[in-house]
Amino acid sequence: MTKLLIDPNRLWTSLAEMARIGATEGGGVSRPALSGTDREARDLFAGWCRQAGLEVGIDRIGNMFARRTGCEPNLAPVMFGSHLDSQPAGGRFDGTLGVLTGLEVMRVLNDLGQETAAPLDLVNWTNEEGWRFLPAMIGSGAFAGVFDLDFALTRADAEGRTVAQELGQIGYNGPEPVGGRVPDAYFELHIEQGPLLDDARIPIGAVGAASGKRRFDVVIAGRAVHAATFPMDRRRDALVGAARMVDEVHRAGSVHAPAGCATVGWFQVVPGSRNVVPGQVAFSVDLRHPDEGTLAALDASLRERFTAIAGELGLALAFGEESSYPPTSFDAGCVALVCEAAREAGYNFREITSGAGHDAVYMAGVCPAAMIFVPCANGVSHAEDENVTPEAAAAGAEVLYRAVLARAGARVISA
Amino acid sequence: MTKLLIDPNRLWTSLAEMARIGATEGGGVSRPALSGTDREARDLFAGWCRQAGLEVGIDRIGNMFARRTGCEPNLAPVMFGSHLDSQPAGGRFDGTLGVLTGLEVMRVLNDLGQETAAPLDLVNWTNEEGWRFLPAMIGSGAFAGVFDLDFALTRADAEGRTVAQELGQIGYNGPEPVGGRVPDAYFELHIEQGPLLDDARIPIGAVGAASGKRRFDVVIAGRAVHAATFPMDRRRDALVGAARMVDEVHRAGSVHAPAGCATVGWFQVVPGSRNVVPGQVAFSVDLRHPDEGTLAALDASLRERFTAIAGELGLALAFGEESSYPPTSFDAGCVALVCEAAREAGYNFREITSGAGHDAVYMAGVCPAAMIFVPCANGVSHAEDENVTPEAAAAGAEVLYRAVLARAGARVISA
Repeated sequence: MTKLLIDPNRLWTSLAEMARIGATEGGGVSRPALSGTDREARDLFAGWCRQAGLEVGIDRIGNMFARRTGCEPNLAPVMFGSHLDSQPAGGRFDGTLGVLTGLEVMRVLNDLGQETAAPLDLVNWTNEEGWRFLPAMIGSGAFAGVFDLDFALTRADAEGRTVAQELGQIGYNGPEPVGGRVPDAYFELHIEQGPLLDDARIPIGAVGAASGKRRFDVVIAGRAVHAATFPMDRRRDALVGAARMVDEVHRAGSVHAPAGCATVGWFQVVPGSRNVVPGQVAFSVDLRHPDEGTLAALDASLRERFTAIAGELGLALAFGEESSYPPTSFDAGCVALVCEAAREAGYNFREITSGAGHDAVYMAGVCPAAMIFVPCANGVSHAEDENVTPEAAAAGAEVLYRAVLARAGARVISA
Repeated sequence: MTKLLIDPNRLWTSLAEMARIGATEGGGVSRPALSGTDREARDLFAGWCRQAGLEVGIDRIGNMFARRTGCEPNLAPVMFGSHLDSQPAGGRFDGTLGVLTGLEVMRVLNDLGQETAAPLDLVNWTNEEGWRFLPAMIGSGAFAGVFDLDFALTRADAEGRTVAQELGQIGYNGPEPVGGRVPDAYFELHIEQGPLLDDARIPIGAVGAASGKRRFDVVIAGRAVHAATFPMDRRRDALVGAARMVDEVHRAGSVHAPAGCATVGWFQVVPGSRNVVPGQVAFSVDLRHPDEGTLAALDASLRERFTAIAGELGLALAFGEESSYPPTSFDAGCVALVCEAAREAGYNFREITSGAGHDAVYMAGVCPAAMIFVPCANGVSHAEDENVTPEAAAAGAEVLYRAVLARAGARVISA
């Protein structure tokens, strides 16, 4: 293995410092998008960027860009980064690792006195997680033109506070037009959020594609009756119907493993009283697959099966809110740069498909894009015990550094 | 059919007036035990009782007794009544019908200038429903010595307010010792809360027995992981396990229909996020059957089946809080009085088993007891559209009147 050019200790120290903002008792972080803890994280990040000589710009949806100028400032910038917001009881690395390895790229360039031809833009996207404000990836989606800016700014959280209000509240309603800086290319480093790399002990995943998503809500209406007195054969128990549907989702997903996933994650029972037969159940179905045709077939077959189950049990069935995006193929040239960077740095790597959506999925519609995955312990993510080793973080930063440099037009100088 | 001795219009008017207290938009009532609306209902009831010349006593757990003296005041009283509290969005008749038909019994005795040998006690029991304070039937349970008074008074609602505090708050912390008045017999009229009488168009059910109950909570722990990225075959999805258990409960209950019931009514999924595989599910199992041996076997076989399902899916399984009571046989003599009263009044009747628990179940441990069921529309109860016809209410009141008179030692005088 070659000597690391990036500074693994500096990277790890910055990760630890950032993890103190919104730290939870269980070892994770809670940084809802545009909350007070998100503002703290943004402020810390902006301070570090300015210390590194970067110029920080903020656009109208709160996306933050930290620019390092290039020798040819009229070239389109090479952009890289991720997000600092988290799930309600999320981990320390989801998103944050992509932003802070990006910062380490900037810092090592400074250390080495290196210049790139193209400018470099390190980005922190607004509201990637999507649990406070729906939809997810609102900042990169607005940047990419997937969402109108007005739509994005008027999304409200559960308390009715809008993105625009909360951007103003934390002082991150910037002046830049959204989508104004068109990049030459986009790289995003992220934890895998699955167990494949960790299982195989491979430090680098070169992400060639991302699964598409189909998500829809289901509402089942039966009849709420007394649990002690209403004969079993006369019931229309919404929970029994929903239970059979959950099992169908799991079985259908299992047929398509490991590439496909099918999950019921949100599930609510009304009235939810121990002595009342459930009259209504609402739940979500989340389907992921890298092939659009398979995804569509899975979606259709589940809806058909649900209709049959509802019919058998005398239940009313309605399909609710939907969201989806198609599978994404990342840019072959950018993926090749990631593979080459890993090879040069002496790391094992494999091509891998991302199950989850990331900001890179929207950015792939704007410019050539690719992602770098690093292993997280046991594939656990969106949980307080999400974990990454210092070595994995350092390997990712080294590969990101080399890929960015290669794209931006400069050479690695061995220190 | 003989002419009614009770006054159906007066009964119906009182029911309508009581239904205004805690009335919901959906046509039901919301009268949590010991809430402001419960106090209003108690005050209205007490006022009516005093207008009817009854002496109202209140015991330390808030049970209300309205006494009509007998010719032989040293005889033990014949007691009848039910409860005025309701489910959160409950119906107008569950409980209330038993109290107000009891009031009608007192009123018609006054109209007819009738005296009974034994005193009569019309009762309103505290916290029958058990959704604000657990356990259910706390007033009659304390009266019957099933619960210690201290235990009953220290039960707290979800906000931590105790029974004792709330009794004081609404002014119903009475001075009488709990269980002080030992009755000669106890009768309780109630809506069936099932569809058997309504289906068969039979106006009167003479309740010979009540099902026993076994209830326990189940907690399943799996692993919360990312829904888009964690391979299906590596998941430990608590919801999939719970779903299969729900289906088992339904199937097991169906085998024992119509006498037995098995229900999952309370069901909670954690974290309940659309893109996270559920890491934990907690739910309740409620089993009812008139035969104790069958109930025990059902309970044991389900726990065994749950253990097997959890094992297959790699889930941890724990059994939580339990509550149960054995099946009850009501007093043959009292049941015969109900049958005879129905026959005299010219009503079709059938013997029936109560699926639900009622205050009468605890009172059966104190004195000879029986229940009278009247049909409710489609068997619907614990719901805002719970309904009873004026004719069904009147028939019940007439049978209650005749049964009480027969037990208390007096004759019906045709008006």
